[in-house]
Amino acid sequence: MSSTNKLKILNDPIYGFITIPNELIFDLVEHPYFQRLRRISQLGLTYLVYPGAYHTRFHHALGAMHLMGKAVRTLRSKGHKITQAEEEAVLIAILLHDIGHGPFSHVLENSIVSGISHEKLSLEYMKVLNQEFDGQLDLTIEIFQNLYPKKFLHQLISSQLDMDRLDYLRRDSFYTGVSEGQVNTERLISMLNVADDQIVVDAKGIYSVEKFIVARRLMYWQVYLHKTVLSAEFLLIKILQRAKEVYSGDMAMPKVLSPFLSDEIPVDYSDLLPLYAKLDDYDVMAALKEWTQHEDRVLQLLCEKLLHRKLLGIRVNDAAASREEMERIRQKTAEVYQLNQDEVNYLVFEEIISNNAYSSQQDKINLLYRNGTTQDIAQAADQLNISALAKPVVKHFMFFPKESVQ
Amino acid sequence: MSSTNKLKILNDPIYGFITIPNELIFDLVEHPYFQRLRRISQLGLTYLVYPGAYHTRFHHALGAMHLMGKAVRTLRSKGHKITQAEEEAVLIAILLHDIGHGPFSHVLENSIVSGISHEKLSLEYMKVLNQEFDGQLDLTIEIFQNLYPKKFLHQLISSQLDMDRLDYLRRDSFYTGVSEGQVNTERLISMLNVADDQIVVDAKGIYSVEKFIVARRLMYWQVYLHKTVLSAEFLLIKILQRAKEVYSGDMAMPKVLSPFLSDEIPVDYSDLLPLYAKLDDYDVMAALKEWTQHEDRVLQLLCEKLLHRKLLGIRVNDAAASREEMERIRQKTAEVYQLNQDEVNYLVFEEIISNNAYSSQQDKINLLYRNGTTQDIAQAADQLNISALAKPVVKHFMFFPKESVQ
Amino acid sequence: MSSTNKLKILNDPIYGFITIPNELIFDLVEHPYFQRLRRISQLGLTYLVYPGAYHTRFHHALGAMHLMGKAVRTLRSKGHKITQAEEEAVLIAILLHDIGHGPFSHVLENSIVSGISHEKLSLEYMKVLNQEFDGQLDLTIEIFQNLYPKKFLHQLISSQLDMDRLDYLRRDSFYTGVSEGQVNTERLISMLNVADDQIVVDAKGIYSVEKFIVARRLMYWQVYLHKTVLSAEFLLIKILQRAKEVYSGDMAMPKVLSPFLSDEIPVDYSDLLPLYAKLDDYDVMAALKEWTQHEDRVLQLLCEKLLHRKLLGIRVNDAAASREEMERIRQKTAEVYQLNQDEVNYLVFEEIISNNAYSSQQDKINLLYRNGTTQDIAQAADQLNISALAKPVVKHFMFFPKESVQ
Amino acid sequence: MSSTNKLKILNDPIYGFITIPNELIFDLVEHPYFQRLRRISQLGLTYLVYPGAYHTRFHHALGAMHLMGKAVRTLRSKGHKITQAEEEAVLIAILLHDIGHGPFSHVLENSIVSGISHEKLSLEYMKVLNQEFDGQLDLTIEIFQNLYPKKFLHQLISSQLDMDRLDYLRRDSFYTGVSEGQVNTERLISMLNVADDQIVVDAKGIYSVEKFIVARRLMYWQVYLHKTVLSAEFLLIKILQRAKEVYSGDMAMPKVLSPFLSDEIPVDYSDLLPLYAKLDDYDVMAALKEWTQHEDRVLQLLCEKLLHRKLLGIRVNDAAASREEMERIRQKTAEVYQLNQDEVNYLVFEEIISNNAYSSQQDKINLLYRNGTTQDIAQAADQLNISALAKPVVKHFMFFPKESVQ
Repeated sequence: MSSTNKLKILNDPIYGFITIPNELIFDLVEHPYFQRLRRISQLGLTYLVYPGAYHTRFHHALGAMHLMGKAVRTLRSKGHKITQAEEEAVLIAILLHDIGHGPFSHVLENSIVSGISHEKLSLEYMKVLNQEFDGQLDLTIEIFQNLYPKKFLHQLISSQLDMDRLDYLRRDSFYTGVSEGQVNTERLISMLNVADDQIVVDAKGIYSVEKFIVARRLMYWQVYLHKTVLSAEFLLIKILQRAKEVYSGDMAMPKVLSPFLSDEIPVDYSDLLPLYAKLDDYDVMAALKEWTQHEDRVLQLLCEKLLHRKLLGIRVNDAAASREEMERIRQKTAEVYQLNQDEVNYLVFEEIISNNAYSSQQDKINLLYRNGTTQDIAQAADQLNISALAKPVVKHFMFFPKESVQ
Repeated sequence: MSSTNKLKILNDPIYGFITIPNELIFDLVEHPYFQRLRRISQLGLTYLVYPGAYHTRFHHALGAMHLMGKAVRTLRSKGHKITQAEEEAVLIAILLHDIGHGPFSHVLENSIVSGISHEKLSLEYMKVLNQEFDGQLDLTIEIFQNLYPKKFLHQLISSQLDMDRLDYLRRDSFYTGVSEGQVNTERLISMLNVADDQIVVDAKGIYSVEKFIVARRLMYWQVYLHKTVLSAEFLLIKILQRAKEVYSGDMAMPKVLSPFLSDEIPVDYSDLLPLYAKLDDYDVMAALKEWTQHEDRVLQLLCEKLLHRKLLGIRVNDAAASREEMERIRQKTAEVYQLNQDEVNYLVFEEIISNNAYSSQQDKINLLYRNGTTQDIAQAADQLNISALAKPVVKHFMFFPKESVQ
Repeated sequence: MSSTNKLKILNDPIYGFITIPNELIFDLVEHPYFQRLRRISQLGLTYLVYPGAYHTRFHHALGAMHLMGKAVRTLRSKGHKITQAEEEAVLIAILLHDIGHGPFSHVLENSIVSGISHEKLSLEYMKVLNQEFDGQLDLTIEIFQNLYPKKFLHQLISSQLDMDRLDYLRRDSFYTGVSEGQVNTERLISMLNVADDQIVVDAKGIYSVEKFIVARRLMYWQVYLHKTVLSAEFLLIKILQRAKEVYSGDMAMPKVLSPFLSDEIPVDYSDLLPLYAKLDDYDVMAALKEWTQHEDRVLQLLCEKLLHRKLLGIRVNDAAASREEMERIRQKTAEVYQLNQDEVNYLVFEEIISNNAYSSQQDKINLLYRNGTTQDIAQAADQLNISALAKPVVKHFMFFPKESVQ
Repeated sequence: MSSTNKLKILNDPIYGFITIPNELIFDLVEHPYFQRLRRISQLGLTYLVYPGAYHTRFHHALGAMHLMGKAVRTLRSKGHKITQAEEEAVLIAILLHDIGHGPFSHVLENSIVSGISHEKLSLEYMKVLNQEFDGQLDLTIEIFQNLYPKKFLHQLISSQLDMDRLDYLRRDSFYTGVSEGQVNTERLISMLNVADDQIVVDAKGIYSVEKFIVARRLMYWQVYLHKTVLSAEFLLIKILQRAKEVYSGDMAMPKVLSPFLSDEIPVDYSDLLPLYAKLDDYDVMAALKEWTQHEDRVLQLLCEKLLHRKLLGIRVNDAAASREEMERIRQKTAEVYQLNQDEVNYLVFEEIISNNAYSSQQDKINLLYRNGTTQDIAQAADQLNISALAKPVVKHFMFFPKESVQ
C-alpha cells in the first residue's frame, strides 16, 4: 500500500521526532475521526492569555503515544514482560484516549452535551473503530476499561503518573511558555517500574516526582485555572447555553452544530457519534462570529465580548461572595445593560474551583525501595511538603462585567 | 485608565517575555483589527505537515516588535541617534506590518482578492488607525513607506535582515520543530550597525550571517515550499476559485465571507476594510466544511480532500512536464472522477516555484569593517558559497489526484 | 587604551552573552586575582558524578553580575532609585563575592586554612583591589559589608533570593544536566521589587518562588550533597589533612602549595593574600598525583583512591551508626589495610549533613501584595508545603572502604 | 560484582542520559586509562575565549558512544544487519578512539611527542587493553583499522559523518555557547543508511547535511581556529618547546612530565604507554605555573603571559607577511625584551592554517535516492554552495608581542 510510505515520522518541537510504529496505528491516525483532533485545540481559549497555546489534541495524542513507547521499553528493560500485542494495545489506547473530546476540549461537556463525558465518548469511538478494523482493538478496549488482568498497563493510560499527564504537562508548559511547569518526562519514565502489578517509581526518583507534583500544581494555578482563562471559558459556556435557549431553526450557524443546540441530540450512540465527529473548534467559533449579529441582546453581547477579548472581570476569594454584594453587582449589571434578572445570570455568576496537586486517596504514587518494599511518596521521609500538597485548595471565582463594579 | 494595568507582559515560549512598551501600543494591540490576527495562522495549512505549526500572525507581530526593541537598543549603544518618537514609530510599524493579512495568510491574495497585496492592505489599515488615534501614527506611516530621511529605520522593517524575517524564521523553526532553521536572533541583532544610513553587520558577524542565509534557504525548501504544504495550499486556492465560480446567494457559508465570493467586493478601501477585517481562518474553514455537502461535484470533492487530508500527489522537477504526460494524467483524472476538461483544471495543474536564499540585487547585506569600509557579504573573501546561494533555484511542481497515476 | 576594545562580550551557553559594562569592571576581570578563578572549579569534584560539571567560579561570577544588571533594570523600571554609582558598586560586589575561594571551592576551608572563610578572604581581596584602583571600590565594600543605608542593595548580593543563588542554581543545573534543578531566573528577577528597603517578590510570583525553593532543595540532595560527591570531597579533605600531618620540606608538590601544608601560613593578611592568590585546582591535583608515589601508606592510599575514582563507600541514615558497627568496620579496615587506629580515622568516619530548603528565620522571602502589605511566603495561603520545607532535614553519612563491609 | 550496580547511567546536559550498555564497556570506562580522560580537556585552552568550554575527552567519548548506539539502531531498523558482536565492537571503538590524546589534546603532539599521532597511540592502548581483557577487543581493533569486511562500520567511527564529529560539533557548540554551530545529531542519524557497504544519507536529508557542513565550517573559524584560541595554543606549544630546550634534571615540574622533556622518551610502546598514561592537563599547567619562576628569561616570560592571559597579538592575512615587516617586528621585540635572534623565534612567528568545510576527495558524503542510486552531495542539484565550500580556505596567522607593533 502506498500509505505505508507516507508520514511515518512527524516533527515534534518537544521530542524531536515521533515515529508511527506500525501500519494499524498509521491507519488509525489517518482516519477522519482522528484527523478531526487537528481542529480541537488542547487548551481551549487559553491562547487569549498565552498567545503560543494553539496546540491541538492531535499533537498531544501523538506525544502521549511517543512517551508510551518509551515507558514500554523502560519496563521491559527492567525485566517486566509486555507482549507485542499488549504494547500495541497500550499505544492505541493512549492514542485514542481523547478522541471523544469536543470543540474547545471541555467546553461542550459543560454546556450542550452536558450528560456525556469525553472519556465515555472516547470509549464509544474506540468500539466503532474496532468494528471498522475487524476487532484489532479488542485488547485496547479491555485495557482502557481496566478489565485486563495486568493492571499496570491501565495505569500507564490513567493514573497520577500516566503518559497522558506526562505529555500534557510538558506540552502545555512548552506552548504557553510557562517554563516553571516543565517536567522532565524522560527522567521520570526512566524511573518507572512495576511492583505488585502496580506502576511505581524507583526510590531514587523521589525528587523528580516531587518536582513533577509541584510543576503540576503550578500549571493548575498559572494556566488551567488562570482567572482570565476561566473568564474566557465560562463566557463560551454561557454563549452556548444562551444559544440553546434562544435556538431557532433559521439561526445562522454551521449546519453540523445545529442538532446540538436544538433538542434533537440523538440518544443512541450509533446516531450520535457520526454527527459529533463532524464538530470542531471552527464550527463553534464561526457560529460565535455569526451571533455577534444575532437579535438576542444577551447572546449578541456575550459573543461580542469574547470575539474582541473584552472578558468579564473576576474576583478570587477563599469564600463565597456575600449575598448583598452579589445582589448589588447584579443590580448594577441589569441597569447598565438593561437586562432582566434571568438575563443577568449570563453575566454575573460564581464558580467554585477546587484542586489538589496530589491525591493519596486514588492511584497514589508509590516509591519502590531496593529491598522491594513500596511506600506512598507522601509518607516517605522528608516529604512533608507532598502531604501538604495533598490537601485540596478551594477558591471561589466571581465573574461580572467590569462596568458593574466601577 | 484601567487598561494600563492589564496585559503589559506576555509569555513567549521563544523569548521568554514580551513587554508592551507603552499605552499607545497597548491600545493598538487591544484593537479588534489587531486582535483579529489571533485568528490568522502564520503558516496557513503547514500544520498538516508539521503538527506544531498553529502559531498566529498575532504572536509573530509581537515577537517582531520585541526584536525591534532590541535592535533599537543595540544601535543606540553603538552611538546612532534614534529619538523616542522614532523608536515608537518603528515599533508600531513592525507591529502592524502584517495587519492586512487575510485568512491562511497568503491564500486569499492568491485566490479571491487577487489584485491586492497584504502590504498594501496593511498600509491602508495603518491609515485608518492613524485617524482613530489622532495622527499618532504619522511617523510610522512615513517610515513604513520609506519616505522618512533616515533610511535605515525602514530597513529594520523591510530588508534582507529585517525584524520581520528574524522573528518569522526563528518562530517558524520553533513551532515546526525544524531545528535546522533556527536562527540566533540575539547574536545577529547584537552585530547590527549603521553605515551611510544603511543597516550593516559588523564584519565579525560574517559567519552568523552566512548561517542565517543557509537557515533561510533550508526553511524555504523544508517548510514554506515543502511539497505537501504546497499541495494543501494550492488545494485551498482551488477551492476558493471554484467557490467563486459556482457562487450563489444561498450557498452555505459564514455571512462575512459572502461578499468576497460574489462579484461585490468593494473597490473603495473605506468600504472594503471593515468587511475584510471581519474575515479570518475560521470563516474559510467553516465554509469549506459546509461545502463538503455542496452539490457541485468539483467543489465538494476538493473540500473532502482537504478536510480529511487526502491531498493531491506532487511531482517536483527541474523542467516542466511534457505536454503528453500532462495530457495523459488529465485524461485519466477525467475518467476516474467523471469530469469535463474545465473541471479537470482544478485537480491537475502545474506551478513554477523559484527561490534564492540571498539576493545581491536589492537590499544586499553589507559587512562593516573596522576601517569603516563596507562590502556585500557575497563578495567577501571565503564566501563563494553565499554567491552560489544568490542564484535562484527554480522548480516545477505538478499536482494531480494520486489515483490518476496508478 | 587598547584593552577597551577586547573582550567586551563573552559567550555564555546559559544567557547567550554577558556584556562587560565598563572599563573599571573590565580591568577587574583582567586582574590576575580574578583570572585565577578560571582555575577554580565551581563544584569541586562533582564532575566525578556529573561529567559535565567542570564550570568555574570565573564563569559563575560573570553570570551573577549579568543577573545583577537585570535586577537593577527591573527595580528601576518599578520606580526604585538606584544611582549609577550604586549600580556599579553592586555589579562589582557580586563579581568579586567569590574571589576568596580556594582550590576546589570549599575543600581548603575545611582542611588546611580551616580558620578562614572564603567570604572573609573575598572582603580582604576587595580591600587590596580597592587600593590598587584608588578607592573606586569604596561603595562596593560598604554594600558588601551591609553598612550602606539602602539595605536592599546588600540583599541582592546576599539573601535567599540573591543573584549568587540565582546564577549558581541555574548554572549548576545546566552543567550537571540535572534539569529538575532548573530555575527560571529571568522570570524571578522580573518579579523582584522593594518594600520597606527590603527585596520582596510581587505576589503573583508566588508559584515561581515555590518552584525555586523546591528546585533548590532538589539540587542539594541530588548534587551538592549527593553521596558520591561527598565521598570524593571528604576524601580530598582527608588527603590534605594527612599531607599536613606528614609534611616535610622535600615532599613533592608545587612550590605554591608548600606554605599551606607547613606551619608557616602567614597570620597577616598582607602576607597571606599574595601567596593564596597563586593557589588553584591545578596545584592540589598535581600534588595529589605526586603523592600516589609517597612513602606514607595512608597518604598514598587515599591519593590512589581519588585519582582512579575508587571512592569510599557511603551509608546514609537518619541517625548515627551504632558504636558497635563503627568499631566493627574500623577493625576490618585496620586488618585489610594493616593500619593503626589513628590511621583508620582517614578511611572510616561519619559526617552529619543538615539542610533546609527555606528558612523563615533569616532573610525570609516576602511577597508584596497589591495593597502594599508584605508576608513571608511560608505564611501565605496555600503554601503549607513551603513551611514544611523550612524544617531542616538531617542525615548521617558514614564513609568506609568498600572492602571493609563485605 | 558490586561494580555492575554503579554508574550505569550518566547525566549528560546534551542528550539527557547516557547509558553504559554492558559490563565490558563499564569495566573499560572504569579503567584508569579511560578515567584519565576526565583530566584531558576537549578543547585545550579554548576556555580562555569561551569560558564555558571546560568539557573533557571523557565526556565526548561517552557522547560519541551514545550516538553510535543510535546509529546502530537506525541502520538495523532500515534492514541492515549488524550483529551483537559488531555493535559492541563499534561502541568500544568509538569509546576508545581518543584514548591516546595527551594533555590539552593536540598540544603535545605538536611539541614534545611530535612524531606520534594520537590515533596511533589510541590504537596501541586498544591493543594493551585487549590483552588485559583477554582478546575481547579483537573485533574492535579490526574495525578501527578498517580491516573488517563490512566497511561501513569503520565509517561510523571515521568519515565525514562519523559519530566522533557528530558529537564533538554538538558538544563544542553547546559548551562554548556558539549556537550557530549546533548540529541536529538526532535528525542526521535518523537519515543514515547503507549502500554498497558505504554510509550514505537518505536524499531527503540533503538540507540537514548542508546545514551540518556549514555549521562545521563555522565552528572552525569561530572556535577551533579562532585567532585568540590559536594565540593561546601556540604559546603553550612554544612553552613546551622552550622547556625541552632548557631542560635540566632539577627543573621544577611534576615527575611524570620529566621524561617527555628530557631526551629519554622510550621508543618502545610497551615502555612509553604506561608513562604517557600518567600525563594529563594538570601536569602541564602545574609545570607552567612553576616555570613562571624559572631562571630562563624566555620560558619565564612565555609562562607569565599564558597564566595571566596576556597573549600574543595576531594578524590574519591571505598571504604571508613581508620579510621586511617580519624583520621590523622581530627587531622591535628583541629590543623590548632584550632577546637574541633565536629567542625572538618564541615570540614572533607565522603559521599557515588551511581548512575546507567539505572534501569531495576522501570519504565524500553520498546521498541515497529512492531509486537506489547515490551521488556526492556536492554534485547534487542546487548544491553549488557545497562545492564552493569544498575549496580550501588558507590563512596566514602572524603572532607577536603586542608591545612590538605600537
